[in-house]
Amino acid sequence: MNHFYQFFTANHIISGAHSLDQLSEHLHLVKRKIDSALIVAQPALQRLGFIDTLEKQLSEKGIKTFTINHVMPEPTIQNIEDIYQDIADKEFDLLIGIGGGSVLDATKLLSVLKTNDYSIRDLLGGNQIEKEGIPTILIPSTSGTGSEVTPNSIVTVPEEELKVGIVSKYFLPKLVILDPMLTISLPKSITAATGMDAFTHSLESYISNKANPMSDMFALESIRLISSSILEAYHHGSSIEAREKMLLGSMYGGMALTSAGTAAVHALAYPLGGKFNIPHGVANSMLLPHVMAFNMDVITEKLVEVSKAMGIDQAEESPEKLAEKVIEQIAEWTKELNIPQNLKEYGVDEQDIPHLAESALKVTRLLNNNPKSLTIDQMEKIYRILLP
Amino acid sequence: MNHFYQFFTANHIISGAHSLDQLSEHLHLVKRKIDSALIVAQPALQRLGFIDTLEKQLSEKGIKTFTINHVMPEPTIQNIEDIYQDIADKEFDLLIGIGGGSVLDATKLLSVLKTNDYSIRDLLGGNQIEKEGIPTILIPSTSGTGSEVTPNSIVTVPEEELKVGIVSKYFLPKLVILDPMLTISLPKSITAATGMDAFTHSLESYISNKANPMSDMFALESIRLISSSILEAYHHGSSIEAREKMLLGSMYGGMALTSAGTAAVHALAYPLGGKFNIPHGVANSMLLPHVMAFNMDVITEKLVEVSKAMGIDQAEESPEKLAEKVIEQIAEWTKELNIPQNLKEYGVDEQDIPHLAESALKVTRLLNNNPKSLTIDQMEKIYRILLP
Ligand SMILES: NC(=O)c1ccc[n+]([C@@H]2O[C@H](COP(=O)([O-])OP(=O)(O)OC[C@H]3O[C@@H](n4cnc5c(N)ncnc54)[C@H](O)[C@@H]3O)[C@@H](O)[C@H]2O)c1
Ligand SMILES: NC(=O)c1ccc[n+]([C@@H]2O[C@H](COP(=O)([O-])OP(=O)(O)OC[C@H]3O[C@@H](n4cnc5c(N)ncnc54)[C@H](O)[C@@H]3O)[C@@H](O)[C@H]2O)c1
Ligand SMILES: [Fe+2]
Ligand SMILES: [Fe+2]
Repeated sequence: MNHFYQFFTANHIISGAHSLDQLSEHLHLVKRKIDSALIVAQPALQRLGFIDTLEKQLSEKGIKTFTINHVMPEPTIQNIEDIYQDIADKEFDLLIGIGGGSVLDATKLLSVLKTNDYSIRDLLGGNQIEKEGIPTILIPSTSGTGSEVTPNSIVTVPEEELKVGIVSKYFLPKLVILDPMLTISLPKSITAATGMDAFTHSLESYISNKANPMSDMFALESIRLISSSILEAYHHGSSIEAREKMLLGSMYGGMALTSAGTAAVHALAYPLGGKFNIPHGVANSMLLPHVMAFNMDVITEKLVEVSKAMGIDQAEESPEKLAEKVIEQIAEWTKELNIPQNLKEYGVDEQDIPHLAESALKVTRLLNNNPKSLTIDQMEKIYRILLP
Repeated sequence: MNHFYQFFTANHIISGAHSLDQLSEHLHLVKRKIDSALIVAQPALQRLGFIDTLEKQLSEKGIKTFTINHVMPEPTIQNIEDIYQDIADKEFDLLIGIGGGSVLDATKLLSVLKTNDYSIRDLLGGNQIEKEGIPTILIPSTSGTGSEVTPNSIVTVPEEELKVGIVSKYFLPKLVILDPMLTISLPKSITAATGMDAFTHSLESYISNKANPMSDMFALESIRLISSSILEAYHHGSSIEAREKMLLGSMYGGMALTSAGTAAVHALAYPLGGKFNIPHGVANSMLLPHVMAFNMDVITEKLVEVSKAMGIDQAEESPEKLAEKVIEQIAEWTKELNIPQNLKEYGVDEQDIPHLAESALKVTRLLNNNPKSLTIDQMEKIYRILLP
């Protein structure tokens, strides 16, 4: 447990069912005068009518809007640079990202690309973003990444067969809208995968080397919220209560990881996304029980606390048994949520494993947070469990 | 419980013993280029050497400093306006408030007075602060008000015999430093009174009409932290662990009240401060058990949750009994902390009571948050309990 730590988050958070419908009343929180706004979205959000709602509200306030609809899931550098080219000659007072983590991460990057003289590749090369971007509003439509409150933007780098995180305090938005109505329509498989991503953020933050009293509070509350609602949100997607808990839980996961960081699960997941396009939440979910089993001997006490937050019966159990139950519970969820457990389904072969491990080894930013260090052999072993 | 709510806080929080010594490394979080800084402080902080540390660090970075040392406890409008006159013709890139709530609240006001064309009286008259102030760093040296993360600044208005709160999002600082070493030197009576103020913030936020899932998390965690450390901090002031818990607990209290608001305890406390100069924490502490007893029938269930967070034994007790135990525990703390329980000690007489109640009735901003509304007779009755 660290007693020296930092915390920062979005400037303003507004939460509640149908809060999206009131967005235009809160624009003063972002900027005094707004003439034009860029809306960054995914086709699903357009199809569901949320973009129309947004455009209508803004135009009623006399704000010109321009909507970008082609952020791809888990966007590549190329995808974001193409979008940037489309808007490079346009001026905006505000960027609104509405969608899953892919859209939010893209919006964050577009915001700073507009005001800094760097390309995405410059940023991946280690250049620090120097200037504040165009102000953003981030509106998550998945309960997963917590990207709305993190200083991270993750891009897929196909030529390196990896996903890479860019980190900057300038990625934090002026305003977050947490409206569970947006997530009611999530397909089951996405509720499952993104929900497990959120859970992974909180569990990894809780056991991280950088864990601290503040990140622990967010992590445990997130674990409480997600544990009590993930199955309900999956089986009864229209339950506003379950969706609300998932959305708050995933935001807290983002707050926890902002202060404590994620760890080996995320490091091992990045090559699976980068090379095999395995959705981020699915990759995390597959790896989570096995990485935790690997960490077990040094995190038993922490998993006891996690077991309480998960609502696991404490009666007459040893710490070791309770810690094991956490891992079993995660594995059971994964089954009930129909998340694949075999990398073969995504085209991974035994011969890919050495290369996956080599790639994961590069993610030192996250591996440094893991309570036990992993050799390349140990990484290979973990991947191999997923090739039964 | 509200499902529609807002949250906002300081931009950046840094916590840890001796974190003040590293302040100058974090200035980039506040502003790119800083030439001059105003330090706002109290004599106690100067005496303890913390101002020297601060001035030295800043001058090593080539920053000119100007220090104001005469913020009075629970400052009057006049006190702050006098200070403002002293600095009106000077330019600063940064304001650093280091001290108790009195200093932090004064710093917040000075920051916006510098950039807006309003006087404090204009703001009390209902004018909204329109422009961002000079950026601030707030460094609490009491574990009490949580002012470092609230949008409030409280001033004493002697001619109205009242304390009045000014509210603006522009009061939030760019950076908060939570360094428990600053609070090690707090005299016992101030540890006690300010600690009970913090506890009151969390308990009032938790039972507020505006309570919501997010404020509840901060409130309960704050109650947990304060309950497990207030007596230790009082009896063994040099315990860094206890001081750390108190400081985090009081900050969470501020976060809770930012979203949920305080209620009748604070409303009834303001006239006691405004007319009789009873320290804010003492006034709250006196009133807290009696206002909670008044609220009892509508908050029993909530007090059961509070009793758990306070670590009160749950064995075989009814909800009513557990709720009563919360109130008893608060009363016992007050005794052990040697906080006066008799208004006579501060010169209050039976004949002052009608006027006190009339003044409290004006604090509608807070009374509206109370789960039960109070008539003027009921207010008088509560004051009278404190004149045995
Ligand atoms: N910034 C961070 O801190 C952070 C943290 C974790 C993950 N990530 C990144 O976020 C990305 C993943 O984001 P994600 O998991 O939210 O998925 P996503 O944004 O890729 O969305 C997944 C799919 O769900 C659809 N969708 C989104 N909202 C919908 C809705 N309400 N109804 C119907 N369909 C909807 C999308 O169109 C998409 O097809 C990855 O690139 C990952 O690396 C970022
Ligand atoms: N802004 C808010 O949200 C908020 C909330 C609650 C109360 N308040 C206001 O804050 C004020 C009270 O602040 P407070 O309770 O922190 O007390 P304070 O700032 O008035 O300080 C009390 C005394 O303690 C001394 N002191 C402070 N730090 C010390 C240290 N480290 N060592 C030794 N002495 C020290 C001060 O010099 C002063 O004499 C009141 O005006 C109250 O109304 C504001
Ligand atoms: Fe993730
Ligand atoms: Fe207070």
